[in-house]
Parts: sequence; structure tokens; C-alpha cells
Amino acid sequence: MDYNVSIDSITVGQQLEGFYVLSEAAVKVTAAGKPFLSAMISDRTGKLPAMVWDYAGPIGAADVGRVVKLRGEVSAYRGSLQITVDKLRLAREDDPYDSASLVPTAPIDQDAALHEIETLIDTIADDDYRRVARTLLTRDLDVFVRIPAAKSVHHAFLHGLLMHTAYMLRIADFLSGLYAEVVDRSLLLCGTLLHDFQKRDEFTFSELGLVTDYSVRGQLLGHLVMGAQEIASVAAELGVPEEKSVLLQHMVLSHHGEPEFGAAVRPMCAEAELLSHIDSIDSRMEIYREALAATPVGAFSERIYALDGRRLFRHE
Amino acid sequence: MDYNVSIDSITVGQQLEGFYVLSEAAVKVTAAGKPFLSAMISDRTGKLPAMVWDYAGPIGAADVGRVVKLRGEVSAYRGSLQITVDKLRLAREDDPYDSASLVPTAPIDQDAALHEIETLIDTIADDDYRRVARTLLTRDLDVFVRIPAAKSVHHAFLHGLLMHTAYMLRIADFLSGLYAEVVDRSLLLCGTLLHDFQKRDEFTFSELGLVTDYSVRGQLLGHLVMGAQEIASVAAELGVPEEKSVLLQHMVLSHHGEPEFGAAVRPMCAEAELLSHIDSIDSRMEIYREALAATPVGAFSERIYALDGRRLFRHE
Amino acid sequence: MDYNVSIDSITVGQQLEGFYVLSEAAVKVTAAGKPFLSAMISDRTGKLPAMVWDYAGPIGAADVGRVVKLRGEVSAYRGSLQITVDKLRLAREDDPYDSASLVPTAPIDQDAALHEIETLIDTIADDDYRRVARTLLTRDLDVFVRIPAAKSVHHAFLHGLLMHTAYMLRIADFLSGLYAEVVDRSLLLCGTLLHDFQKRDEFTFSELGLVTDYSVRGQLLGHLVMGAQEIASVAAELGVPEEKSVLLQHMVLSHHGEPEFGAAVRPMCAEAELLSHIDSIDSRMEIYREALAATPVGAFSERIYALDGRRLFRHE
Amino acid sequence: MDYNVSIDSITVGQQLEGFYVLSEAAVKVTAAGKPFLSAMISDRTGKLPAMVWDYAGPIGAADVGRVVKLRGEVSAYRGSLQITVDKLRLAREDDPYDSASLVPTAPIDQDAALHEIETLIDTIADDDYRRVARTLLTRDLDVFVRIPAAKSVHHAFLHGLLMHTAYMLRIADFLSGLYAEVVDRSLLLCGTLLHDFQKRDEFTFSELGLVTDYSVRGQLLGHLVMGAQEIASVAAELGVPEEKSVLLQHMVLSHHGEPEFGAAVRPMCAEAELLSHIDSIDSRMEIYREALAATPVGAFSERIYALDGRRLFRHE
Amino acid sequence: MDYNVSIDSITVGQQLEGFYVLSEAAVKVTAAGKPFLSAMISDRTGKLPAMVWDYAGPIGAADVGRVVKLRGEVSAYRGSLQITVDKLRLAREDDPYDSASLVPTAPIDQDAALHEIETLIDTIADDDYRRVARTLLTRDLDVFVRIPAAKSVHHAFLHGLLMHTAYMLRIADFLSGLYAEVVDRSLLLCGTLLHDFQKRDEFTFSELGLVTDYSVRGQLLGHLVMGAQEIASVAAELGVPEEKSVLLQHMVLSHHGEPEFGAAVRPMCAEAELLSHIDSIDSRMEIYREALAATPVGAFSERIYALDGRRLFRHE
Amino acid sequence: MDYNVSIDSITVGQQLEGFYVLSEAAVKVTAAGKPFLSAMISDRTGKLPAMVWDYAGPIGAADVGRVVKLRGEVSAYRGSLQITVDKLRLAREDDPYDSASLVPTAPIDQDAALHEIETLIDTIADDDYRRVARTLLTRDLDVFVRIPAAKSVHHAFLHGLLMHTAYMLRIADFLSGLYAEVVDRSLLLCGTLLHDFQKRDEFTFSELGLVTDYSVRGQLLGHLVMGAQEIASVAAELGVPEEKSVLLQHMVLSHHGEPEFGAAVRPMCAEAELLSHIDSIDSRMEIYREALAATPVGAFSERIYALDGRRLFRHE
Repeated sequence: MDYNVSIDSITVGQQLEGFYVLSEAAVKVTAAGKPFLSAMISDRTGKLPAMVWDYAGPIGAADVGRVVKLRGEVSAYRGSLQITVDKLRLAREDDPYDSASLVPTAPIDQDAALHEIETLIDTIADDDYRRVARTLLTRDLDVFVRIPAAKSVHHAFLHGLLMHTAYMLRIADFLSGLYAEVVDRSLLLCGTLLHDFQKRDEFTFSELGLVTDYSVRGQLLGHLVMGAQEIASVAAELGVPEEKSVLLQHMVLSHHGEPEFGAAVRPMCAEAELLSHIDSIDSRMEIYREALAATPVGAFSERIYALDGRRLFRHE
Repeated sequence: MDYNVSIDSITVGQQLEGFYVLSEAAVKVTAAGKPFLSAMISDRTGKLPAMVWDYAGPIGAADVGRVVKLRGEVSAYRGSLQITVDKLRLAREDDPYDSASLVPTAPIDQDAALHEIETLIDTIADDDYRRVARTLLTRDLDVFVRIPAAKSVHHAFLHGLLMHTAYMLRIADFLSGLYAEVVDRSLLLCGTLLHDFQKRDEFTFSELGLVTDYSVRGQLLGHLVMGAQEIASVAAELGVPEEKSVLLQHMVLSHHGEPEFGAAVRPMCAEAELLSHIDSIDSRMEIYREALAATPVGAFSERIYALDGRRLFRHE
Repeated sequence: MDYNVSIDSITVGQQLEGFYVLSEAAVKVTAAGKPFLSAMISDRTGKLPAMVWDYAGPIGAADVGRVVKLRGEVSAYRGSLQITVDKLRLAREDDPYDSASLVPTAPIDQDAALHEIETLIDTIADDDYRRVARTLLTRDLDVFVRIPAAKSVHHAFLHGLLMHTAYMLRIADFLSGLYAEVVDRSLLLCGTLLHDFQKRDEFTFSELGLVTDYSVRGQLLGHLVMGAQEIASVAAELGVPEEKSVLLQHMVLSHHGEPEFGAAVRPMCAEAELLSHIDSIDSRMEIYREALAATPVGAFSERIYALDGRRLFRHE
Repeated sequence: MDYNVSIDSITVGQQLEGFYVLSEAAVKVTAAGKPFLSAMISDRTGKLPAMVWDYAGPIGAADVGRVVKLRGEVSAYRGSLQITVDKLRLAREDDPYDSASLVPTAPIDQDAALHEIETLIDTIADDDYRRVARTLLTRDLDVFVRIPAAKSVHHAFLHGLLMHTAYMLRIADFLSGLYAEVVDRSLLLCGTLLHDFQKRDEFTFSELGLVTDYSVRGQLLGHLVMGAQEIASVAAELGVPEEKSVLLQHMVLSHHGEPEFGAAVRPMCAEAELLSHIDSIDSRMEIYREALAATPVGAFSERIYALDGRRLFRHE
Repeated sequence: MDYNVSIDSITVGQQLEGFYVLSEAAVKVTAAGKPFLSAMISDRTGKLPAMVWDYAGPIGAADVGRVVKLRGEVSAYRGSLQITVDKLRLAREDDPYDSASLVPTAPIDQDAALHEIETLIDTIADDDYRRVARTLLTRDLDVFVRIPAAKSVHHAFLHGLLMHTAYMLRIADFLSGLYAEVVDRSLLLCGTLLHDFQKRDEFTFSELGLVTDYSVRGQLLGHLVMGAQEIASVAAELGVPEEKSVLLQHMVLSHHGEPEFGAAVRPMCAEAELLSHIDSIDSRMEIYREALAATPVGAFSERIYALDGRRLFRHE
Repeated sequence: MDYNVSIDSITVGQQLEGFYVLSEAAVKVTAAGKPFLSAMISDRTGKLPAMVWDYAGPIGAADVGRVVKLRGEVSAYRGSLQITVDKLRLAREDDPYDSASLVPTAPIDQDAALHEIETLIDTIADDDYRRVARTLLTRDLDVFVRIPAAKSVHHAFLHGLLMHTAYMLRIADFLSGLYAEVVDRSLLLCGTLLHDFQKRDEFTFSELGLVTDYSVRGQLLGHLVMGAQEIASVAAELGVPEEKSVLLQHMVLSHHGEPEFGAAVRPMCAEAELLSHIDSIDSRMEIYREALAATPVGAFSERIYALDGRRLFRHE
């Protein structure tokens, strides 16, 4: 019996026991009329089909996204591996599994990233913008540090929003120096910090912290409009002048650049213009990083749908 | 001497005295180095160039949109009429001019229209939606009744928003009966009433009430996002359940239908879908009304830029 | 043995006998070289795979869309139900099956809808438009009352065109009152009645009346151009003045609004403008009705491809 | 006194008498209150402003497009030439002016072009298509030979449609040989002959034969739909089988290729596909011919709006 | 035992031996843990699944595109044919198979086509253009004559580029006569010959000569830019004047017509304009030829994705 | 008499003498038949109309863009200033005028900018990329340092290309550190240096160094394709490996991002993706800088056509 084997190293014939995420699950019926559970299990390294014969519950579709403990044997079916499970239960709070091994996580030092963000925010010269940034960061710190930045495409892992925001703030800091003549650094840094803050309420999350879907509010309003409302409300609380509040809201509302990409309005000040480019750069570099990691040197990636179906080249 | 002649009935040689709107104004200098005022005056029936020789002020560009009293003589210059002014001053508050004759006004009975709107709002069955509608209508009644619905294109006259909203509510009332199976009449009527409410703050207005330009906030946020914020805030005050508030905000945010036409999100419920069609129908019928009034029977109008350059046919 | 069980209530192990529509059919050969019929049967409530072993005909692909009588036993194969048939024949004209239970039907009172349409047509004030409407309605009454309005997407059931037209005429009647200043009610009602008349020849239909495909003429010309030709010809027969005939043709040719949605020309008169909006409203409300019926309260529908992939929200 | 001087050779100080086209005309009033006619005259070589002082009619705006006889003297005003007219009257039917010198004409031998077309039509192998082609050509011969193919852009001169059609038929003849495996030559030649036939009724024409505007029918239906109707009607008269009539109509309806360029349907058979390319080739080569004639060798033309603003290069 | 049976005439139960192309190949493992080869074999008439049980190599995925010799028996699996192979080896150079029977080939007389091209090139009047054409044709003759013009869609068979170029040159020759006033025949013929020359390096090819994929250079630069570079370099070698070299490069760079279809610049001279139309015509006629060959008379083809999903009609 | 007064400080009545650029010039004829020169003169601060009465040459349209010496008196005509010139001649090489006061110049320290670029190029780690960069920079140093980066829109002043490139290299340097995992700094810096190098041959320049127009080669090929050819040729000379040459060419060919913005191919490696964003950022920040300089605080700029007609807000 092998314990908690990572999915990308499983082989035919192995006896397994361990904790995995239940990624898909459906109770079906055989031709002979017997119930069985057809499922998919996953960890941070991959996925594996799992079958539980003569099983009608209690675990089923409603438990997708939760951690299970299972025991079984690996076989090959039509040339692919699968596991036939003989023991299955939901994990308990005190079970000794390691979430970090079960879900993908941002490849960064989280504490360093957060420290860097806080340090940059403290350098915002304008009192009003700094207070808005500080207040919201403090209020939502836990969520901000933990959640992914997306459901898929890029930064769809734990601490994804933290990583995305930290990189973007570094670029914002650099460009506000280069274009100091037209850019208000305080506005740019504050807007960059807050641009995706409402991803928090736009999505719903699984027990382990990954995005499972859009919330009703997220679908009907979108994180741009929701973010602008949160800023309007905090700015009012803090007594920030109207024009500054409006400029911050404008940054969030326009950060997708064009209406066809989801912007509620087009950028009309230099800081909003830069924010939409910085967001685009960091999103795309992460798409490249993830796609090229799965591509051999000298070859082209699969088509990337988020980039209009382009195939990316890995050189060297 | 003729008094307060309407501009569309002025003729060559007339001696005039009266009140008009100063629509354009610029102090220039002749080849001989003498200052003069080159202006345009208007009333609800048209426009006329006006020249004040040997005049350096105090009236000038800053007074555009205000009412003036003038005296002068009408001549023809290059085949067009113009007035050479010998007396000019700004109108005073106690001057006996009639605003209604100076600016275009909606061709409706305002009291009847407002009464009809209020009656319809009272029939909203859902308490929450009715309270939101009632509260906002009461709070902003004066402005709502008075302002145009646009700067140009359609309903760009006094009481234009009242007229536009009244017509749309009638259609909304009718369609919520026809499609009762999928439409919540309360939501549709409330959303229809409020969809353009923030035109109030999106625009700036002249002393006489016409739209002069977009406000800074109007440009940077837009009346859709501003309207959703106002609803969020009033709904919270009144203790309206979150989902109803979100649905109302969604109606306002999506009422332009497509992102390319300014919608912050696409309609996702039947009431929002209908609202965007109703808005489109009433806007276009008013464009037709105004364009066909200036077109002879059996002919095509000028190109209408708001309708992609189409020329409209006046039949019969 | 159970008789004429509706497909949505069939269970494993049932012995069935009854009439169903043969929706798909193909004769295949087993690995052992024996022929069998792999088919799909349907009624107005759903679909079910059917296998006829050791069967080489005469029933096959050419009978798709026809009614069959069959007897067999229901089993489960890979977790889904299917029926193993031991008796199969085509239904005969005198067989006692109920077409209404076999194909989906519009959820309206057909007689009432037709009566309402005829009553509205009789109120058309203009003699010429009324005669064209009356003539075509009388000439094609049977087909008009019976056929679906589409192959799928919306109103793809028996009496679909009747339902679609009846709803649209009600809206047309209402709006011609509201915009009486720019709308010729006679033209709008006549054009609305006739806008989809040539769906009759654009499609081919199964024995039971559902749309099976586009006809050659339907593909090469389209129901807009075909409809305009029919109007031109009837108007000439009836001695209708040229301009009225052209206006009616224009309404039909432009009722899809934009060339990218199939309009041969863009709307250029108020009645054509309204018709394209009314058509759009009624089509979309029916899409909402069908999609929301399959969506739980508080959830979003599947993506609707006819609405650019939007997901619709069912509130309450 | 010089007689019938062509406009491109007029010089300052000349005394002129002759026949010209009245291209623009408006009666205006001087600052002193006196009426005068402000006009533009033209011949096939250019345009010239003309002023008739102390003139209130009878010639005016309603006579635009007609031939006038005038006498006057050429002067320079603000650096440009103009003619001050002292005698002006409409030309009479028996006046000895030469229309060919007054309007632009296709640079082809008309008789040869017509003969070539008729010869090609006679080689159509299919009886039905040949009879349709022959019947329509014979019926409308005079108009077909005379009218321009457009209001501007290309072939906007007398015999323009004849020239355009003759060139296109030559290409159609050549390509039907090259692609004989997929192309029915009879269908392609017949469709090519008839594709623009209804330009006849789509436009209105001046006395001298140039296009002045779109007709009401032309605007509301378009020459594609009108052409398909004409074919449907002639084919029915001649007893042509339905499928052939539909294919011919399809060719005319689809000859603009894409809906955004005005096609009522997209081409779906090889002949329709070729026709849209042939039409595009001949239209563009004529645009090039006209644009390059006005461009020096080694330089680029003005922007050509019909070609998305491209500038064309004249090499050699 | 039957030898080298063409795939479209294979039947159940046949014992086969012969040479085929290995189109797909993957070694898999059965549920029992035994390796097997799951493959697809093809010849110019079709494809057939092939299974080699208890087989782990040496033939596998790396041999896709190569010719194999095999022996086996044909059975039916789930109603489709497949072959169970008992002997399998790669073909050797001296094996007596006929490539022409294994891969699709252009339906033309290659020698005649090449002769026609060379004859036309010899008639190019301009010395410079003729020398460029001659030099490149001579230098790359073998490849030019052999390769397909595409990976799929049209002309994706051996000698496809030869066929495509020969047809296009005939049209170019014809049109340069028709539009002699604006077209330099030498430039048009030379540009037409060379427009796709760099397909040679844009693609990679299998041993049998079909396109397998894009090369790295082909993806990163494209055959338009690569073709222009080749021309620039040869023209410099031959001392061709700069403007002629630039015009030839422009023809190749613009021959896809619009940027959205891959053109690096838009056509700006008459020859480039014609070339893009000629390329479009010949590509589409070949798409029609291939699609209609698979469509019954009186029916519509499958959707053609290269033509925006249109379905093509086969008449007669 | 005042000497070399800058145009933005000229006043009515001044007697002027000095050197200016002749921006527009046309010889015309008065109503009395006398020739005169209607011209526009400019320096780096603005423009002024100039009239030379009784003047027929030798200076005229052919001298536009050259420096002239003139003497005259300033008057006001229709409220605007103009100068009536009594002496006019072309400037001679030894005339003591200061070009820097006559044409707009980049607001940077040119030597510092060049030094920074050269220092960055020296830090390119890859020998091949560094040699290509060094070779081209050395070969074209004078032109690179001097020319504008555009004809208008942004960086349309002397040393514009130097400024644009220096800013972009700084961003490239910064981002290659931030995304070191996916970015080859050597490739990114080399590609950034060379991306606009061929603006040199894409444009023609006036004597003073501003862009006057596109060259024939620039129009027919574009600076992207021309730049890729130059790199291919230099890389071959220097023996750079094929893949590196192709990657550099790809960077230049794709730096406009999308085909609709002029890219010959879409970016397919991380460095090309970044380059297109960096180019976009620096172009837009310069557009903002120039537009906001002409906009009062708290107001919106004129519509910026290079930004789809957006109006930009100047806050603070």
C-alpha cells in the first residue's frame, strides 16, 4: 500500500491510500441495474478517474470540490489509468492532509509579496489615496492574500490575486517614475491595488479556496462596477474629495480598456490608460509562463483561446 | 419697431427689439483694428447671426446660453439674414420675457404625463420596488420633470426626460401584461422609471435648462454606473433585500443593450432585455418624429448619424 | 405491458407498446456481421434510444420524421435507458395515435389566437393594406395556422407562427396608438401579419408538421425576398398602388433590422423600424420563456447561443 | 466672342456664348436686397461658377441638370475663374448643341460592345437561360445601352452599364471555360448580363442621362431584390423551370458577395461565387483607371473612399 | 489473400496484404496490461483503423506519415470496418509500392501544366521581371512542381502548387489583355508566378510529400514576408531596378487582400489588386470542386468553414 | 523693426524681419488679374498667414518646407492676424538663422539619451543579438539620432525616434527583470532598439528634418517588412544563427500587435508580446503629454483621433 502518492507519479497495479480532491462525481446505474459512483479525483499535479462499484452514496455530486480519503487499486482501462475504489469517505477537519499538495498555489513567497505591497502603499504621497488604499487593504487582508485572480486562463491558483497585484504594483511604480510629467503616482498605485479587489465577491470559492463559479451579484454587476461602488462608499466614509473618488472609480471601471473586453467606460486619464496596459501585460506574461511550461523547446504551444487562438513559440 | 418677433418670421429691413438666447458669442477685431461682437441669437424657432460693431464687452463668450435684450435692424448679407445690433444687455431676473418662447419644449402636457407616471408607480405590486421608485421620484421630482433627456439626437428639449420616461412606462406596462409568464411587472416598471435618472448629474445645464455639456463625473463614470450607485444606496437605506437591489442595478447597467452602445453588462433577465428594447424603440420613434417633420412627403430625410447614416422616408 | 407511456415517465424494466416518432434511424452491422437498426424515438416529452437486433429493414433512414408503432423492453446501458424493440412497423393512417402527444405544440388557444388576428386585420383602415392582408391570410390559412415559426431556437413547435404573429400584432396595435403621429397603423399591422409568411416555403416539414430543413428555394432566396415577391404579386393582382406595395415589401425585406442579421435592406420608415423591434422582442421573450423553464430559481441558464452565449438569470 | 468653349480651356477676360449644363442653381438676395442667380455650369471637361445679377427667374433650382444657353464674360474672383452672365435661357429641343460634349461618356465603341454582348448571349447553350437573357435584353435594349452603371465611384458616365456588362461577360466567358467542371456557362453568362439590369429603376436620371439620385423604389428595395423580381416574373412568363429561375434570382441577390456590401444572401453556387468576384474586379479596375488618370507617374492618388481610403500608386 | 486493395473497396472478412500510409499511431496498454498498437492507415481513397495486438514497437507515433507494409484480416467493430494486423514493417526504399496510389494527387497533366507556365513566363516582355521569374523558377523547379499548395482546405495534394499557379497564370494572362490600359502584364505574370513560392519553406512535408505542419520560420514570418525577402535578394543579385523589386515584393506582401486575411499591406497598384482577386477565385473554385464532388445533385454540402460556414448547392 | 520674433508673441501693427519656415505656398490671381502669393509661415511656436501682393515667383509651392527670410507688417483680417510681406527670399546656407527655433524638438537631453541607449546595448548578454544591435546602431547613428518617429500624432519632432526608443528601452530593461522566467532580455532589448529603425526609409523628410510624407517604398512595403529585411541581411552578414535572426525579424514584424493595426504577424513569443505593449504605452503617454499640455486643469481635451475620438481629462 502506497500513501498520498501524487497523481502524476501513479502507475498501473499500485495499491493506493490517501487524500484527494473530489473534482467530479455522479452516481450512475449499470446495465444490470446496480448503482455506482463515477468520479474524478485530483491533486495539484493532475487528475485520475475513479470508480466505486455498488455505491449509491452518501458521497455524490454535491461534494464536488471537497477533500476525500480513499483506498483502491490502479488499473488500465482502454489504455488510460483509473482507480477502482473500495473505501471512500469525506475528509474530516482533523484529518492530517496537506492542502498545499492538493491545490495549485502561486509560485511566490507570499509574505514577501504582501510586505512589498504594504511598503509601496505606504509611499503613496497623497493622503486621501493612501487612506483609501490602506483602509481597504486592512479591511480585506485575509481574503486579498488568499484568493485566486481568476477561474481559469491565468493566476487561477491560491494567492493568485496577491501575485498579480504585486507584479502590477512594481510596474506601476516604475512607470510613474518614467512618466512623472503626466502621471499622478498616488492615483496610479492606489488604482492598481484596488482594480481587482471585488473578485472577492464576483466569484464563489470551494472549501479549498479555488474559484468554482461566478456569484449572482458577480454575473449581474461585474467586479468593475462592484469595485467602483466599494470605493465610492469608502471614500465617502473617509471624507475624500469628490474628484479623487471619481478618478479612482474611473480607474477601476475602465481597467479592461475597451467595452468589448468588459470596460464600463474607456480610460480618459493617463493613470487609467497605464493601468489597463499594466493589467494586460501581467495577465499575458502569466499566460505565457503557464503555456510555455507545457511546451518543449523549439515547438509551439497548443492554441491559447484567451489570445485569439494563437500558438506560442518556446525558443532557445 | 417690432417686439419679440419669433426668429422664423423675421424679414429684411425690420427694426427689432426683444429677448433672445445668446447661442454663440466672440469678440473679434476688424482689419482696421476695431473690436466687434460676432454672435448668434436664438429662440425656440431658429437662429440668426448678430453683429455689434465697436463693441468690446462686457458681454462675450462667457455669456453663451444666457438671455439678452437687444435692439437692431435686419439686413441681408451674402443672401442670408443678419441683425446689426445697436443696443445689447443681459436680461435681468425681473425682465418680462417668456422662457417658453426661447427654448424648445416637449410637445406634451407635462402635468398629465407626471400624473400618469405617478399613477403607474402606485400600481407596482412589490413593496420594495415601489418604495425605491417612490423615494427617488419624490426626492428628485423637480429636476426629473424639467430636464432634457439628451444633449442632441432626441428629446433634447425641456421636459424631454419626463416625456421619454412616460412613453416608456406605458410600453413597459403593456408588455408586462403580454409576457406576464416571464416578466416581473414591478421590477420592469421600477427599472424603467429609474433607467435615465442620473442624466441629472451626467450633464451640465444652461440657465434656461438645456444640456450644455457632460459633467466631469458624467464623462468619467457615465449615467449607467452613477444610476446603479444611487439605487444601491437608496435600496440600502430602505432595507430592500440584496437580490432586488442587484436586479434593479443590473437593469440600469444593461439598458444600452450591448457594450459597444455603452452597456456595462449585457441584459441577463427578461426585464432588462425588455428595458433595452423599450428604450431603443422610444428613442428611435422620437428621432423619426423630428426627422420626418423636416422632410417633405414622398422624400427622404438627410442622413441620420444616430442611425448609422440612414435616410428616412416620409410616405403618404 | 404498458401502452403509449410518455417518454419522460419510462422506467427500467418496463414492457412497452405504443406510437412514437422515429427521430433518427440507421441500419448498422455487428462485429459478427449481423444487421441491426440503431434508432431514436421521441414524443413531445423527450427522446429514447431504440435498438432492433437482426433487422435490415424495410424501415430505415428514409423514414425519419414518421410515426412508428413498436413493442419492446426498457433496459439501462452505460447508465442510460434504452429500449430493445421486438416489433416495429410504420403507423397507418387509421391508427389511433394522438399527434398532439407526439410533437410539441404552442401553449396557446389556437382558435382564440386566430380569431384575434382576424379581428385586428378587419380593423385596418386602409382598404389596400387590408385587402392584401385578408387575401393572403385567407389563401394560406391552413398552413399559417399550423406551421412552426422556426427549426429551433424559438417557436419551433406546431402553431408557432400563429403564436408569434398573434403576439406581435398585439404589440403593433399598441404601439401604433402610442406613436400615431409617425406610424401608419394600417401599414404596420399588414406588414406584421405578413413578415414571416414565407416561412411556409422556406422550410420543409415532416409528416407531423415540424421543420426538418430549409428548402432549396429557402436557402437560395430566403423568406424575406420570397415574402416581398409574394406581396408584389398579390398587390399587383389587387390593383394596390405602387408605393403601398413597395412599402409593404420594404417592411418584409428589412424586418431583421441589420444586414448582418439577414435584412436585405435597413428599415427606412417608422413602421419598418418598429416591426424589426417587435420581432426581436417577441423572439427573445420566447427564448427567455423556454430557457427559464429549464432553469432553477436563483440560478443561471445554460449559455444561449442565439443570444451570443449569454446565460440568463431566473430570479424570484 | 468665343462659342461653346470647353470649360477646361476657358481663360480670364474671355467673352463666351454657348450651351452648358446647369449643375447647381439658387436664387439669392444681395445685401442691397436685389435678387441674383448663383449657379454652376458644366460640360464633360469641368465646372465653372456663374453669376446672373438682378435675376429672379424663371430659371432656378428646379432646372438643375438641364441644358442652358448663356452669354457672359469670364473674370477672376478670389483667385478662381467665374462667369458673369448677361443672357440666359433654357435650351430648346431644336437647339444645335452636342450632348456628347456636355456629359462624360464611356470610352468604348458602343456598337461593338453591344454586338459582342448579343453574340455571347446567342452562344448560351441552355434554352431557358438564353430565352430569359434574350427577352430582357430585347425588352430594355435602349435603356440598357444608355444608362450609367452608378451615380459616382465608377462607370458613372453614359453607356457605363453597357461597358461594365461587356467587360464582365468577357471574363465570365473565359472563366466558365477554365472551371468548366463546376461552372454552368449558361447560368453564369445569363446571371452576369442581368446582375445590374434594375439599375434602370433604382436610379432617377437627368434629361441628359446621368444619375441624379436613387428612386424611392430603389432606396426601399434595392436593385438586387428588384432584379430578382423581374427575373421571377419573366421566367414565369416564359415557362422556365422553377429551379433555374431560383438560381438566376440567387445570382442577382448575392452578387455583392457579403451582406455588409449589400448582398441579400451569400453566394452558394459556383456561378454566384464567380459573379461576385467578376463584378468586384471590373468595378475596381475602372476605379483604378479613373484614379490613375488623375495621378502623375511615380506618385500616389488621393485617398479612394470606395477602397477604404487607400491611395493608389501609379508606377512606370 | 488480396494485395494492395484500395481502401474504398475493402469488405468485411477480407485477408489483406499491401502497402499503406501510417496516418496515426499510438502504443497503448489493454486493461490486462498488454501493449498494443492503435493505428490508422490510409491511401488516396480513404482511411481504415488498424489494431496490432501484443505489439510494443518498434513502429509507433514517430513513424506517422511513412509507408508501412502489413498483413491482416478485416472485421467489423461497432458497425465500422477495422483491420487486425498480424504482420507489420516499415516499407523499404526498394519496395515495389506505388506512391501515386497512396497519396492524393492533382487532377492535372503535370508536364503540360509546367510547359504552359514556362511558355507564359517566356512571353514576359519586361527583361527584369522575366529574369526574376526565370531565375526563381529554374532554381526551385523540383520543389515547385511537387508540393501541395496548402495543408488542407484546397490544393492539399501533390502538385497542388503547380496546378494552382498554372490556373492563376491563365487568368492573369487573360485579364492583363482586358485591362491593358492599367495593367503591366509583365509585373502581373511575374507576381502571380511567385506569390506562393515560399510555401516551400513555410511548411514541413512528410516523406511522401504532403504538408505535415508549419515550420518555425513559416509560423513566425509567414510565406508573404519570406517571399518578399527572396525576391528582394534575387532582384539585387540580378541588378533589377529598385522600383521593380519593390513592386514585386508589394504584390507578394499584399496578395491576401486584407490584413484580417493575412496581407502585410493592402494592394495599392492594379496588378496587386488583380492578383489578390485571382488567388481568391482559384482557391474558391477548388473548394467548390472538392465540396461539390462529395454532394449529391439537388442537395447542399456540409458547412464549409473556409467560407464562413456556408453550405454550397449542387444544382442540375 | 523687430527681428526674429517668435510667432506666438507677434501683435497687430508690428514691423517684422526674420527667418521662418514656409509651411504652405500658392500663387493666385486677384479679381483684377494680378498675381499674389498666399502663404503660411511657421516656427516652433506656431503659424501665421502671409500675403505677398503683386508677386508671381520665383518662390512658390515647390519651396514648401524650406526656410525663407522676409520683411513685412502685421495686420488683422477678419479678426485674425496676418502679415503683408514686402521682401521675401529663400534663406542661404550661410544665413544666421537658428533651426532649433524654427522646428519643434524632443524635450530631452539628446546626448544623455544616446549614451543611455548605448550603455544598455552594451549590457546585452547574447553575443549575436548584441552584434546585430551594435552594427545597425553604428551604421545609422546620425539618422537614428535625428529623425522624428512619426509624421504627426506623437513624437513628430526632431529626435523623436531617439526619445521614443530610449523610453522604450528603459521599460524593456525593467520588464525583462520582472519576467526573467519567460523573457530573453537580449532578444527584447535588441528588438526594441530596432523596431522602428526603418522609419528612416519609410518617410521622406524636409530640409529641416521633419517628416513630409511616406516614401514610395514606405507605402508599398511598410517599415515593419523593411525592418525585417534589414535585420535578415545584417544577421546573415554577421553569421548570426538562423533562429535568432528569425526571432528578431518576428519582433519587428509583429510590433503593432494586431493585423488591423498593421502587424504583419501576431506576436508569438513573450518578447514580441511585450514589445507591442511597450510601444503602445510609450506612444500613448506621449499623446497624453501633448494633449494635456493644451488642456486646462479640470477640463477635457479635444477629441483625440488616434485614440478613437476619446477626450482626455486633465485632473488636479
